[in-house]
Parts: sequence; C-alpha cells; structure tokens
Amino acid sequence: MTMVHLPQPYLLYLADVSDPRYAKTAQGLRDWVPERCVGEWSLPGNDLRLGLPTLAPAAARERGARSLVIGVAPVGGRIEPAWVPGLVEALEAGLDLISGMHTPLSGVPELAAVAERRGRRLIDVRVPPPDLPVASGKPRSGKRLLTVGTDCALGKKYTALALTMAFRQRGIDVDFRATGQTGILIAGAGLPIDAVKADFIAGAAEVLTPAADPDHWDIIEGQGSLVHPGYAAVSLGLLQGAQPDVLVLCHAHDRHHVSGYGPDFPLPPIESVLDLHLAHARLRRPAVRFGGISLNTAGLPESEADRLMDKLERDHGLPCADPLRGGKRFERLVSACLGA
Amino acid sequence: MTMVHLPQPYLLYLADVSDPRYAKTAQGLRDWVPERCVGEWSLPGNDLRLGLPTLAPAAARERGARSLVIGVAPVGGRIEPAWVPGLVEALEAGLDLISGMHTPLSGVPELAAVAERRGRRLIDVRVPPPDLPVASGKPRSGKRLLTVGTDCALGKKYTALALTMAFRQRGIDVDFRATGQTGILIAGAGLPIDAVKADFIAGAAEVLTPAADPDHWDIIEGQGSLVHPGYAAVSLGLLQGAQPDVLVLCHAHDRHHVSGYGPDFPLPPIESVLDLHLAHARLRRPAVRFGGISLNTAGLPESEADRLMDKLERDHGLPCADPLRGGKRFERLVSACLGA
Repeated sequence: MTMVHLPQPYLLYLADVSDPRYAKTAQGLRDWVPERCVGEWSLPGNDLRLGLPTLAPAAARERGARSLVIGVAPVGGRIEPAWVPGLVEALEAGLDLISGMHTPLSGVPELAAVAERRGRRLIDVRVPPPDLPVASGKPRSGKRLLTVGTDCALGKKYTALALTMAFRQRGIDVDFRATGQTGILIAGAGLPIDAVKADFIAGAAEVLTPAADPDHWDIIEGQGSLVHPGYAAVSLGLLQGAQPDVLVLCHAHDRHHVSGYGPDFPLPPIESVLDLHLAHARLRRPAVRFGGISLNTAGLPESEADRLMDKLERDHGLPCADPLRGGKRFERLVSACLGA
Repeated sequence: MTMVHLPQPYLLYLADVSDPRYAKTAQGLRDWVPERCVGEWSLPGNDLRLGLPTLAPAAARERGARSLVIGVAPVGGRIEPAWVPGLVEALEAGLDLISGMHTPLSGVPELAAVAERRGRRLIDVRVPPPDLPVASGKPRSGKRLLTVGTDCALGKKYTALALTMAFRQRGIDVDFRATGQTGILIAGAGLPIDAVKADFIAGAAEVLTPAADPDHWDIIEGQGSLVHPGYAAVSLGLLQGAQPDVLVLCHAHDRHHVSGYGPDFPLPPIESVLDLHLAHARLRRPAVRFGGISLNTAGLPESEADRLMDKLERDHGLPCADPLRGGKRFERLVSACLGA
C-alpha cells in the first residue's frame, strides 16, 4: 500500500528517435524538473538535442544519475530492439531503468537478465503497486486540490504543476501528486491511476494523498473527465478517493467535442459539468468548492483570450486564468484556491 | 474483445465445506439454473447436500457435464490443498474447471500440469478477458436495462434475474448480462467488471452488451453504487458503457448507511440518487428513464412492506416492487420498464 517512487536524478534517453513530437516525456522533464535531469543521451546518428549535457551512462552515473528514463514514445509504445544495447549499457553503468512504454521492461529477456545480475531495478511507471486497498472513505487531515476537466488532454497536469509552483512561491507546504506517467516522472513518485483495477481506483487515490499536516496541500493531477464516454470511471474514482477541498475545472477555448470522438459527442455546458462534480464531491466533503477555471487559450491573441476569460468569470462567478500566461489573473486564481 | 463464456452444464463441487453459508455460489446455481446443474459432489465426510444428484466427476461427465464449478467460497477465497485431488479427478474425467476464487486455478502447479496434459481449460471467472477496448461511446441498436443501487449487496443481481425471467415470460427476446462472478456462472457468460482496469471499464460494458435486434433487451446486472465511497467508479463505467434505455433503482428498506462503512456514511436521499444517475446516463442516451424501484423488503410483514412501497411510489412517481414477493406490483414494474 504505497505509491511508486523513482530513483533520481535522471539520464534522459532519446534512443534513435529524432522527431521531437515523440520526445514529449523527455521535454516535459527538461521543462519541469531540469534540476533532476543530469543529461540526455541519443544513439549514434540521432541529431535530436534537448539542450542538456550529452552524457553516456557511465559519465552520467559519475555526475550522480541514478536512473535512465526512456524519454521517447513513438506510436505503439514498444521498446524497440535498437534501444536495447543502450539500455544494457545503462544497467552495466549502475543505473536503474524507468519506462512508461506499454512493453514492460522485464518483458525484454536481455534486460531482465542483466538487471538481475547487476542488482538493478526495472521500473515501469504504468504499473500500479500491488495490494491497493478499497477506499475507506474516511476524512483525513490536510488540504487537497484536484484539477478536473471538461475533457482529456487540455491542461489538467499543467494546471496542477503551475498551481504547485505558485503555492510554493507563496511559502505553502505543498506536494504535486501525480496520477499519469509523465506526471509521475516529473514528481519522482505517484500512482498510474488509469491502470488500477476498477474496485481499487478510489483506494489508490487515498494512498496517493495520505493524511498530512492540517496546513499541508496536495495538488492532485486529474485524469480523464467525469463526462467522458470512455474515461469517466477513472475520474470519478479519483474524485471520490481524493476527497478534494478545492476543485479547479480545466477547459480549452477551442474544445467543443470530446477529443477523438467527433461531432456526435458535444461537451456538456460548463455549468452542468461544475454541478456534476460538486454532486459527487460533496458526498465525501460537504464543504468542497471550485477555486476557479483554468482555460487553455493556446493560439489566441491576448485580447481575445482576456475576453473569453472575462466571459467565463461572469458566467460562472469564478476566477478564470490560463496558467501558461500567468500574470495577475493567475495569481487571483491561486488566491481563490487558497480561500484568501 | 469478447466476454467470458463457460462450458455447461456444470457439476457443483462442495469439497469439504459443510457450512451452507459458504456454499452460496452452488446454491445460487441450483436456484437459478437447475437445468444446467447435472449434479453435486462433496469430499468424503462432508454431509452438506443441495438436493441435486450426487455424482462423482466420471459419472457427471457421462450425464453430459462439461465442467466442474467450485461452488463454495470460505473466508479468504483460497483453493485449499484438500480440494486439489478432487479437482484433478475432474480434469482426468474430462471436465474443465471453473473457479471464482482469488487464487487462480493455474496458480496451483498440479492443476496446471494435469490440465495441460489432458487438454482441459482452467477458467477463473474473476479474470477479465485481455484486450478490452476503450469505450467508443457510439449508440448501438437493441434495448438495455441496467439495475443500479443506493448501495452494494441489496438486490441488483436478483432484480436483474427476476426481470429477465419476467420479460421472457412475456415472450420478449432478452438476455441477462452478468458482471459479477455468481452472475457469470448463472448466465454461463459475462464480464467481471470490477476486475477491469480503470481505462477499460466502459469499454468492457460495451463488449458485454453488443448491438442487437431493435426489439432485443439486455438486462444488465449492476455493480456497486454511484454514491459508494469505494465502488462508485465501477458503477459509473458500467453506466456509461451500457448506455441504458431504462434504469431500475434497487434499495433495501433497512439500509440507511453504506454497508460496511458505518453511521458516518449515510446514504443520500433517493431523489438525489435518481437525479445523479440520470445526469450521467443522459450524456449517452438522452431518453433514458427510470422504470421503477426494486425494494428489498426481506423480514417485513406484507402490510408493512406494502406501506413502504406505496410511500416510495408516491414520493418518486415510480412503480415500486420487491421481486422476491412478485405479484401484481412486480408485474406493474415490469410493464413500466417495457414502457407498456
């Protein structure tokens, strides 16, 4: 009954992947936790660079690296045969391996053998820990904020990370609680909630956000959406187990239909999404409230972004900001989350 | 992408379990599908009898049995060493083995070896099929009824089975769709929805209730409760994927708190439970409606049961019946579900 913990700092492995679109994991780590990334490493002939020191495993180990992270994810999510010699080199150099691929690391016989011989760990961040409990539903001390969304892939992780940094800048004792693989790599710990068996989703969320000091905040990365045709169950289990004090609704200005589902799947009105979240969340924590709305305004000129955020503020009586734009709007959202 | 299918008819194995309270699986099969139970079989010295012919595996095979079902579940849910010789005898006699235990059958080396040698199947009904899809959310033809509940363990399976029989008696083309292990054994097919990984729960419900003739009904066994502290995610995934046309709310007259969670977990008012289900279900099927309320009135004198059901009918404007009591009330509930 514990979450996944990762050995840090990392060496980021780009292998033979030269298209930056498939290196989002490595880029996310470079952007969010550069201090935990000792360097990057590609196979010969791969020109992709992220701007970190280029280090082979032995050199990275000397500079303190404890693990090599597979920082790329081409379509299919497999560990390619061409990557294996480099992974073996990392194990031989004394690094553990961390992967978010669909193929488990231990499913590659050569890696399993070398890891066994060298006493190194093979860590698949998609694999939840065993023996997760059914949720107790009991209240616990500490404060919790959960980012939720009108859909998938519109800023729940980004918003949670930005709020965590903003809370920390205000001197608040805060932890980012990761629920997806990129988030787990950034945080160095977490629980891949979408891979947990149905009966234990809320229990996993309880394990992820344990009792804490009364003034401590957990900021929890949301998953899916309560109104999503495929992933609503994940979102509800997380909402039930997290028992948030504060919710932040994430939305994107140009998202009108469920992503990947097409025009027959319009998103419900924001007001009903807010209401549905509160109806569930109040069962566990009657005083729960929305701190505000995080609007992804990517691609909009500032004046238009402001106009849309002003309208959402008026329509729903909640502060609205785009964390990527920051500024006073975002500080107002942060203050509202804190109840200040 | 298929559900679990079981070889029938069954031989029910009681092993060394003499306490009838731990033989509920076998009793459920005897009560609901006696025509699919060739006989029962106990170890020497066990006096428990269910009233079926007592047959050793070879004799049961001769009478047409295709599988032996472990019909008992003592606390812990393990396959006991004392049961193994009998299980081996069944495999040698040409029967497949079916288990709802926590221990997988293939985890017992002797069973794995004999099954391999004899070409027999070891079927764990708690294990969902591999390669379940993420839900498509697309509407599909045919009609669907889902039983839902204010809590766990108050009659969702029983209600679904009783409605299936009543529909069939009215000449309607209907299938009972099982989502838990006892239901799967009764139906001979199904999907253990509570063991499916979070991302695939709604997809599993789609696989379980495929497109059908426009006049065909699936009656789907509900799981958990949308307002349960631990199991709400299971319920929501099932609700999303099943896309029911009709819901039936199951409740028990003496259930005021979440079962096993105690007085700090009062059940929400029935009106709000109805509303919450409709808010979710309408996202996938706008015309969804409640057909009625199934009230478990076990232990009450008839006059008191009637008084409570009358009150629920008045309060919520829905027919209310106890399927175990049957009668005109229940027929009215059936008619309301059919929209007749």
